[in-house]
Amino acid sequence: MPKRAGHIKLGAFLHPSGHHIAAWRHPDAYDAAAVDFKHWTELAQTAERGKFDMLFLADMTAMRNWPLDRSSRVHTYVAGFEPITLLSALSVVTSHIGLVATATTTYNEPFHVARKFASLDHLSGGRAAWNLVTSTNIGEAFNFGREEHLEHDARYDRAAEFARVVRGLWDSWGDGAFVRDKESGRYFDPAKVHPLNHKGEHFSVRGPLNVPRSPQGRPVMVQAGTSDVGQDLAAEVADVLFATSQTLENGQKLCKSLRERLVKAGREPDEIKVMPGLAPFIGSSQQEADDKFDKLQSLVHPEIGLQLLGEMLGSIDLSGYPLDGPLPEITTTIGSHTALKLFTEMAKRENLTIRQLYLRAVLRGHNVVRGTAVKIADHIEEWYENNGADGFNIMPPYLPGGLDDFVNLVVPELQRRGLFRNEYEGKTLRENLGLKRPESRHAGR
Amino acid sequence: MPKRAGHIKLGAFLHPSGHHIAAWRHPDAYDAAAVDFKHWTELAQTAERGKFDMLFLADMTAMRNWPLDRSSRVHTYVAGFEPITLLSALSVVTSHIGLVATATTTYNEPFHVARKFASLDHLSGGRAAWNLVTSTNIGEAFNFGREEHLEHDARYDRAAEFARVVRGLWDSWGDGAFVRDKESGRYFDPAKVHPLNHKGEHFSVRGPLNVPRSPQGRPVMVQAGTSDVGQDLAAEVADVLFATSQTLENGQKLCKSLRERLVKAGREPDEIKVMPGLAPFIGSSQQEADDKFDKLQSLVHPEIGLQLLGEMLGSIDLSGYPLDGPLPEITTTIGSHTALKLFTEMAKRENLTIRQLYLRAVLRGHNVVRGTAVKIADHIEEWYENNGADGFNIMPPYLPGGLDDFVNLVVPELQRRGLFRNEYEGKTLRENLGLKRPESRHAGR
Repeated sequence: MPKRAGHIKLGAFLHPSGHHIAAWRHPDAYDAAAVDFKHWTELAQTAERGKFDMLFLADMTAMRNWPLDRSSRVHTYVAGFEPITLLSALSVVTSHIGLVATATTTYNEPFHVARKFASLDHLSGGRAAWNLVTSTNIGEAFNFGREEHLEHDARYDRAAEFARVVRGLWDSWGDGAFVRDKESGRYFDPAKVHPLNHKGEHFSVRGPLNVPRSPQGRPVMVQAGTSDVGQDLAAEVADVLFATSQTLENGQKLCKSLRERLVKAGREPDEIKVMPGLAPFIGSSQQEADDKFDKLQSLVHPEIGLQLLGEMLGSIDLSGYPLDGPLPEITTTIGSHTALKLFTEMAKRENLTIRQLYLRAVLRGHNVVRGTAVKIADHIEEWYENNGADGFNIMPPYLPGGLDDFVNLVVPELQRRGLFRNEYEGKTLRENLGLKRPESRHAGR
Repeated sequence: MPKRAGHIKLGAFLHPSGHHIAAWRHPDAYDAAAVDFKHWTELAQTAERGKFDMLFLADMTAMRNWPLDRSSRVHTYVAGFEPITLLSALSVVTSHIGLVATATTTYNEPFHVARKFASLDHLSGGRAAWNLVTSTNIGEAFNFGREEHLEHDARYDRAAEFARVVRGLWDSWGDGAFVRDKESGRYFDPAKVHPLNHKGEHFSVRGPLNVPRSPQGRPVMVQAGTSDVGQDLAAEVADVLFATSQTLENGQKLCKSLRERLVKAGREPDEIKVMPGLAPFIGSSQQEADDKFDKLQSLVHPEIGLQLLGEMLGSIDLSGYPLDGPLPEITTTIGSHTALKLFTEMAKRENLTIRQLYLRAVLRGHNVVRGTAVKIADHIEEWYENNGADGFNIMPPYLPGGLDDFVNLVVPELQRRGLFRNEYEGKTLRENLGLKRPESRHAGR
């Protein structure tokens, strides 16, 4: 097999104490408040030292919709910084790494979202990215005057229109629109501003956006769902797909399916970077890596495991089923189709009990690789060379150790193999991802 | 008259090129893009060197609703940074100055607003403030799916409920809620989290907020309307009132009226700082100051002056009236009641023509003082000592010169008179404003 051209792309997907649901209980894990900007500065600068393409922040606009006694046992999606404010501050203490914040299309307005990411793109000199999601936590509905969630396809219908409006707003101003001619008194060229005048099913937005065209032309767009409608949306608007692929075969299928959709949408097949999540447990030996993994798994409270798994399957209550029995048949339209498919397939493929399955849910079904830096690099190389991924969104199970190990041990191994950059290629996230600066739809007019 | 205890409070209310509608055309005014973080860093650091209590940013979620040919002649409310992202970044390059962003209650959701300001309060170590406004620009409606604005009192009704929800969300978490006990596995104390369960006329918000209680307890709240309903809302929720007082007598009336409302609302009379806007033209002589003023006024395009004045009066088209004749009688419920009252009173009091009046509108009716640093300080001292203000929101007419002059010339004069601090008293904005850290409504429970 010929070696693929180019380099892998890497995201650092971070929660303050790490990704594992019990991360904060690990003896070596960061254990002060989530709202500690110094800690975030260190994490971002470590990722930048490791030449990561981007720092990736998840988001929910609510706590988990669990009984308080249960949610008081976990550290993620509880309380911390709001991602866009945090990334705005981190833009000042970093210089090259991309800054990706998640923002839901279900409980936001496109004008606000377009504006904040364009502003972040200016603040950071072209390093902003928006991870578009739809909301699946009913607790979010309760914070925005709704009693129930939109059904899956309706959520994506709104998301698609939302994304189109945001892209349209980002094209409001032509490059060079602000002439600032003190003599004639003309601050901008009226011919270079383009109101959107969008009137759709979900939104009416006149525009123009009140932010000049941003350094990247448009901030990078990430999409995080891989259902059919999710892939179609990605093929239309996304630059990066954040995926959950358990096996190389699934990864290959996804890449192939997505590239076909891209071509159908009139885009080049390499205009999206597919980056599955990957949670690496890194040790100086296999044994040390396994021990790290076992240690974290042993800290998972069974109640939490069951709750998490039920949620990944779409608000399913599994408490009536024997823990050491098989997963029952599940049909639902609530929640993430991607996660439901992933977990039911995994259970069948590996013949897992509910208990075994929930121990997979603690990392949300993302691929876990345990071993030495060489083994982690092997995994990455295999997927990349066999077109199962264009890169990975690295999910350190606990922090700061999990990120330090990756940067100090795995990155040099990837560089040695010629798989990863030694220095940033450009200044903007698009340049580092190898993506073109998009022309405005109004360019030349 | 006995000298008042304490110090005056100062805000630096900044637009990138300055406040005057023609500021950007001034030969000495900053003349590059509005989205230049380096420029903003210098402004913020200058204000901090001048020991300003706070940096104050206005906002609209749309451009002015003018014909493009007209709006292309002005620099404010066109296109620039979104204020909360900008202040998040500025929090990193400053250490003491308060950071005030305007956010409208008319086209936002309380959960998002509460969250972003709480996040900024954490990022800045307790320096965040929210300037609550209602939207009067119809262009904002068009960006959020509306065909028309809410009428004045309905806007304030929504604003009041919005403010109550935000305050309630800021009290979601008790101090010390995050116990992070690795041994027992308890991340937070369930007894110290308080969902809001708000169900009102405009909003249903369950909460809790997903940000821990912030350093100031609650971010500082600024209110910018001085109509009757505006004052009532301020008396209920605000810590600072940003006012437009043209005469000392009006300033005194406002302070008195507001303090009475405060007492009625069960608060102490000094729990709000009243800070009128003040646009100083500073010269080494009176002549030099007058020349600066005349220079800027001469750069105002008549079409822009008329447009601005019509807008201050509530979307009134004045093009049918003779420029050198008197202002006609005006009745309207659109727009800001505060501005309408201000301008009609000013026109009567000083017997101004439409043309003379629009030259006042270029600084939005705020007080203009022209003269030496001693004269500016005299004005500030007179208002402060006679209870016409607790401080001023300084609106440099052009930048960076207007701010440099104030910091280099006026601030030392105020300090010499014992009217203004030599060093910041505390770390948080509340401490510097002399305001208590509020107890949570759930404290002790």
